[in-house]
Amino acid sequence: MRRKEFEVEDREICEAFLNERDDGVLTFKGIDGWPKAVPLNYAYKDGSVYFHGSKKGEKMSGIAEDDRAEFVVYEAHAFIPSYYSDPLMACPATLYFRSVRIRGRVEQVEEAADKAVALAALMSKLQPEGGHLAIDASHPKYALQLKGIAVLRLSVEEMTGKFKFGQNLSEKKRIEVIDGLEGRDRPGDPLTVAFMKEWAPKPK
Amino acid sequence: MRRKEFEVEDREICEAFLNERDDGVLTFKGIDGWPKAVPLNYAYKDGSVYFHGSKKGEKMSGIAEDDRAEFVVYEAHAFIPSYYSDPLMACPATLYFRSVRIRGRVEQVEEAADKAVALAALMSKLQPEGGHLAIDASHPKYALQLKGIAVLRLSVEEMTGKFKFGQNLSEKKRIEVIDGLEGRDRPGDPLTVAFMKEWAPKPK
Repeated sequence: MRRKEFEVEDREICEAFLNERDDGVLTFKGIDGWPKAVPLNYAYKDGSVYFHGSKKGEKMSGIAEDDRAEFVVYEAHAFIPSYYSDPLMACPATLYFRSVRIRGRVEQVEEAADKAVALAALMSKLQPEGGHLAIDASHPKYALQLKGIAVLRLSVEEMTGKFKFGQNLSEKKRIEVIDGLEGRDRPGDPLTVAFMKEWAPKPK
Repeated sequence: MRRKEFEVEDREICEAFLNERDDGVLTFKGIDGWPKAVPLNYAYKDGSVYFHGSKKGEKMSGIAEDDRAEFVVYEAHAFIPSYYSDPLMACPATLYFRSVRIRGRVEQVEEAADKAVALAALMSKLQPEGGHLAIDASHPKYALQLKGIAVLRLSVEEMTGKFKFGQNLSEKKRIEVIDGLEGRDRPGDPLTVAFMKEWAPKPK
């Protein structure tokens, strides 16, 4: 059951998360009819998600038969132990996380110039310090490489965020969890506390 | 194209990775026919993967119609910039990672006692320090909770690991990448160097 209180409908917030992260899992139907899950780096640009890979293989053959796909980007922020809010039962144990799911159709990018733009977006995300010849389809060294590589474009039809930071908690429980995280102080905990405060329901 | 040099066929190595990590993405066909990708915590136990969740929702309805699923667990270890091994071209830029993909059929765990065992495995993984009443189907407080929660079992039909740590590199390039990582020394880099050495092809 998708709980309404964790859903993030604001496209800008989802896009900011997509631009912050750099890997996710692409899901599609394989040619054997089974669902497939492939972790991939990506770049999000102008309302589409771009991937690259080999021209042969399960992604290319699966998508050639059925272009429907879902892509999920996910970050686990903090495990919340049950005893932060319940001294007895295991039930409140949970994970606080952010995720964005994108549903859409995948197609191959055919033009060398378009491939170059997508790969340049990937490189500027993963290697922002540069240190390579700019990717340019007209450069003889890149022209051959671009021919050999596949670039995929997932056009976004639907984008849904799910950010879980205790929005369902009572104010009392929220304070107990924040106290627990502040006492534990693992590397991800200060950011989690900030998100808990940011996403707490506004008082009515 | 799945490159043979990155494939890990040793079941014990894949299982050790599954026991080390605690989240992954479950992929299945939704009732609308589209592929779905849901991030989940899991426990791996006796050759099956266990998840829990709500009794209503897309997972339950999708799997009730088509029980075929793939589950992928993934860890990104280090981005390898192109300039570690090529002063000019962007092409060698890549990510070193470990992933395990499991394909199998998903069913609901019906018996309260079996649910309790699966949830106890999840808790001992996520909250190894304890701090809660042991999950026991015969305990009145848990009996009701167990009724309300769904537990899913993915029975492993196929398990494939992909560990990418430069196994395709020449000895010269491998040393260049190791030198680069040792010079950069980001938090994940020492482990990545250790994996590069562990997974380097044995001299013939």
